[in-house]
Amino acid sequence: MKSDNSTNLDLPSSTTKSQKVYLQGSNPNIRVPMRKISQTDTKTETASIPNSPILVYDTSGPYTDNEQKIDIQKGIERIREPWLKERGDTEEIKDTNENSKKQGITQLAYARRGIITAEMEFVAIRENQNRENASEHITDELPANTFGYNAPKQITPEFVRSEIASGRAIIPNNINHPESEPMIIGRNFLVKINANIGNSALSSDIKKEVRKMVHAVYWGADTVMDLSTGKNIHDTREWIIRNSPVPIGTVPIYQALEKVGGEAEKMTWEIYRDTLIEQAKQGVDYFTIHAGVRLSHIPLTAKRITGIVSRGGAIMAKWCLQHHKENFLFEHFEEICEIMAKYDISFSLGDGLRPGSIADANDAAQIAELMTLGDLTKIAWKHNIQVMIEGPGHVPMHGIQKNIELQRHYCKDAPFYTLGPLTTDIAPGHDHITSAIGAAMIAWYGTAMLCYVTPKEHLGLPNEDDVKRGIIAYKIAAHAADLAKGLPGAQLRDDAISKARFEFRWEDQFNLGLDPERARAYHDETLPKESAKIAHFCSMCGPKFCSMQITQELRDYAKSIEKNENEAKNQGLRDKAKEFATTKGGIYT
Amino acid sequence: MKSDNSTNLDLPSSTTKSQKVYLQGSNPNIRVPMRKISQTDTKTETASIPNSPILVYDTSGPYTDNEQKIDIQKGIERIREPWLKERGDTEEIKDTNENSKKQGITQLAYARRGIITAEMEFVAIRENQNRENASEHITDELPANTFGYNAPKQITPEFVRSEIASGRAIIPNNINHPESEPMIIGRNFLVKINANIGNSALSSDIKKEVRKMVHAVYWGADTVMDLSTGKNIHDTREWIIRNSPVPIGTVPIYQALEKVGGEAEKMTWEIYRDTLIEQAKQGVDYFTIHAGVRLSHIPLTAKRITGIVSRGGAIMAKWCLQHHKENFLFEHFEEICEIMAKYDISFSLGDGLRPGSIADANDAAQIAELMTLGDLTKIAWKHNIQVMIEGPGHVPMHGIQKNIELQRHYCKDAPFYTLGPLTTDIAPGHDHITSAIGAAMIAWYGTAMLCYVTPKEHLGLPNEDDVKRGIIAYKIAAHAADLAKGLPGAQLRDDAISKARFEFRWEDQFNLGLDPERARAYHDETLPKESAKIAHFCSMCGPKFCSMQITQELRDYAKSIEKNENEAKNQGLRDKAKEFATTKGGIYT
Repeated sequence: MKSDNSTNLDLPSSTTKSQKVYLQGSNPNIRVPMRKISQTDTKTETASIPNSPILVYDTSGPYTDNEQKIDIQKGIERIREPWLKERGDTEEIKDTNENSKKQGITQLAYARRGIITAEMEFVAIRENQNRENASEHITDELPANTFGYNAPKQITPEFVRSEIASGRAIIPNNINHPESEPMIIGRNFLVKINANIGNSALSSDIKKEVRKMVHAVYWGADTVMDLSTGKNIHDTREWIIRNSPVPIGTVPIYQALEKVGGEAEKMTWEIYRDTLIEQAKQGVDYFTIHAGVRLSHIPLTAKRITGIVSRGGAIMAKWCLQHHKENFLFEHFEEICEIMAKYDISFSLGDGLRPGSIADANDAAQIAELMTLGDLTKIAWKHNIQVMIEGPGHVPMHGIQKNIELQRHYCKDAPFYTLGPLTTDIAPGHDHITSAIGAAMIAWYGTAMLCYVTPKEHLGLPNEDDVKRGIIAYKIAAHAADLAKGLPGAQLRDDAISKARFEFRWEDQFNLGLDPERARAYHDETLPKESAKIAHFCSMCGPKFCSMQITQELRDYAKSIEKNENEAKNQGLRDKAKEFATTKGGIYT
Repeated sequence: MKSDNSTNLDLPSSTTKSQKVYLQGSNPNIRVPMRKISQTDTKTETASIPNSPILVYDTSGPYTDNEQKIDIQKGIERIREPWLKERGDTEEIKDTNENSKKQGITQLAYARRGIITAEMEFVAIRENQNRENASEHITDELPANTFGYNAPKQITPEFVRSEIASGRAIIPNNINHPESEPMIIGRNFLVKINANIGNSALSSDIKKEVRKMVHAVYWGADTVMDLSTGKNIHDTREWIIRNSPVPIGTVPIYQALEKVGGEAEKMTWEIYRDTLIEQAKQGVDYFTIHAGVRLSHIPLTAKRITGIVSRGGAIMAKWCLQHHKENFLFEHFEEICEIMAKYDISFSLGDGLRPGSIADANDAAQIAELMTLGDLTKIAWKHNIQVMIEGPGHVPMHGIQKNIELQRHYCKDAPFYTLGPLTTDIAPGHDHITSAIGAAMIAWYGTAMLCYVTPKEHLGLPNEDDVKRGIIAYKIAAHAADLAKGLPGAQLRDDAISKARFEFRWEDQFNLGLDPERARAYHDETLPKESAKIAHFCSMCGPKFCSMQITQELRDYAKSIEKNENEAKNQGLRDKAKEFATTKGGIYT
């Protein structure tokens, strides 16, 4: 990335350790970004054996492309613009909402009509991560229990289309956010993660928020939610969208509430609707809408230890009680659908009644809302709108599977998008860990996207380091789930890093990891010298106790046995050992 | 803790936030330590309602007792000495191994003879955590699937005895480590965690190691393994044991190997035996012994990506191949039992062939060794020796349950003691998280003790901060498992912290957490003023968007409804709402 001083985002330097590459689709303007991690050779006494580079999924957009010039005031390249123009069914109209034709311009509408869009082809290539060209054998045998995961070894554009048509997956892509690189959220694809950013009434500024977004995608966020609540909401969002290579989600009620001075009872459907349209035009890709918090559900929260912990849920509950009316988002749901359909904005149906503590997990309020979300899903689908469903929250391990089973049942397999869940309440300051446990498990059971939790959860606003820690914890959870589901090729990176580890290719081990910077820094804390990075031992055991080294000797020995297999069969292993000891003077060679 | 300058261990200051208390057993010299966390009152407009203090399990020994004077040169109080004397079946003999009488002086021997020892009573009191006096109702209803967990609501000394007699639990307590506070490891008790410390050939010094041990128990390590491999092994261990309130484990082969200059092939049974006896006399509570690495298993590791990653396993494999003989630990297993029985040292049967990567998980080598460990368990039990079984390692989530099922089957429910497992290989620098995921799950399935992994795993030696991070991650995993198993009373602390969180009792939230220091520091980063700690909002949402505050208003409203329930029934909810709005002037009061 090149940038002038005025817009310098001061990104981490390790971008240079891997290389941005693009996989070409059927059309020259379909270029799918990947990150190529090169490896050094495996050295033996007699040979240098090359190790294949590993291509990994890359969310970082142009910020890690040395060929691209970044100017955050202009925004990044509008890669989807040519595709939208080619389809020719949307018009560039600034001042009306009438920018779609009759048949529906959402990915769901296309999918149902049997049309494979450029977005679908893009995500198919992206999901495969070039595994069709991997030199290693990739099994397509699935584990005994995949909890419903079922995808072909090779993701085809047609498979993507069929998953979207069935409602099991979504591509959140507002037609007014052509800068975004298409990505898919669904149980039969790589598990995705979301990072929240956003200022509160108490702190933050615009450029800092853009930088947070760029940091988030640099470390691997698949989508970013802008949860700003303070001043300059509109402008902050504009900057973020124009510079974001990933889908942006928002919770429109936050801005609507700003417009009425923060007083929930003054909120009206009209103010909310206008806010929706304002954000839709800007290019927000998915809206969290708490339409499932119905008036009759609210009393179910009264005996909870932590009541309603969702901000949006609490605002709507307050409005409902104050007016003693049904939630206006529920009442006007069809109108909301009509707006969102015009821009292909996806629903993230909010779980305003999610549990905020172990004690409140899986209670009547939560389940009542989930059932409502199922009903709303059907309405949204009728309007050709893509839908995902938000989930908890705080849930003990033994309650996690029930969550997704109920979600699948009530919401007909619409993608699940969960916050954690946190598996205990007792570790403030470490909730990226309490929740990574629950997140990994629920993703294994089929959750399509995980909303990250930072170490600051419950305590304060995350800074950039917190954002990174949250993202890494969630990349771990997502990848652990991909492995457990048996996602073809998911293990290639694990195998490569383990082989590098075993062969003491330290630099390769660092570069293949999720956090090369930290891995390198930790190694260097004990053995800072460059020579230690090619040493065949490490600080944990020292040279004499090195199990890796001993194993290598054992392996060499086993190989020498294999080589003379017939001979060994005749002479027996005992003789072979004697020969080895006498001819080579012991196992140390 | 009082200490003079020469032995000042410079412990964290937050010890003052909670208070050491002791629960009295049947005998004045049975005093079970607990940590009492006091809470502030819940304030309403009209009243101050006290919140009960929470008593939690406390591993920190005398180091958090203000009444105790610590001199690490003298060692800590020998609390078990009177119990050993009362039993009168061991003699204080310095220079022979003959310090036990015929019937067996291990906890297993006593348990089988129907004797309830002071140690058993101590752990029964300790496990209950005073829950019999909790003001909250504690359910004894277990979740639908507890994977074999089955304990009464109240742990009795007799239950402890029966669990030990069955082999399902152990109290690792060398008679020569009377300083230790008894603790129990078994699937029907609180999940425990172990922290490894120890210098390598390349760094560290004795006092630093003692300090690491104290830090480890301060943050919650239930046992500590001293894995030193460098110089001064004997003296380092002596200092650690004399000052340790928790059981100490070692891997004796490390010291034995030092005695032969690090050359595995020069190792003999005699050198190993003498090392065992040396460590037994010092008071080591459990030995990791890699007797399951049999000659015939070694070829099974040849095709692995990461071969043998256990240091002890690699050393034994090398010895076996070099001499082409069966593992001498296997051959001399009965003699090892005879030594250990005299001191009541427990076996931690080592998994020398544990997988070191996702690719190698659950392979033939690992399972072959596990079957051998099952055979060895039976031999150890014949000698009245307590046994636990070590487990992996690196295992993807979908392979975790199989591990413990096989372990239970082959090892007849002897406690399982696992390292993680790490659920992916791709996050060096964050392996406390990759492994906390696996650790929480395997503990839920029944693992009795978890060996921690620090962020430095695979990269370097942990410093004190790494040790703390590893321990906190594992306290989270262990507690998440206790909750999921339905362990009676486990949720009391979660409920207390959640209530404190909901009521904005910030100091209580910090103090009830696993890491009060960090929680406080994180909170103060955004809102440093003391006044913010009594504010009814936080930096995440600011005052206007505070869901907690809104919920409190909703709750007050719900209460007012409940109060006039009959009236409400007659008038209907709509009228009630109207009345509320008009009489109270809106929900803001």
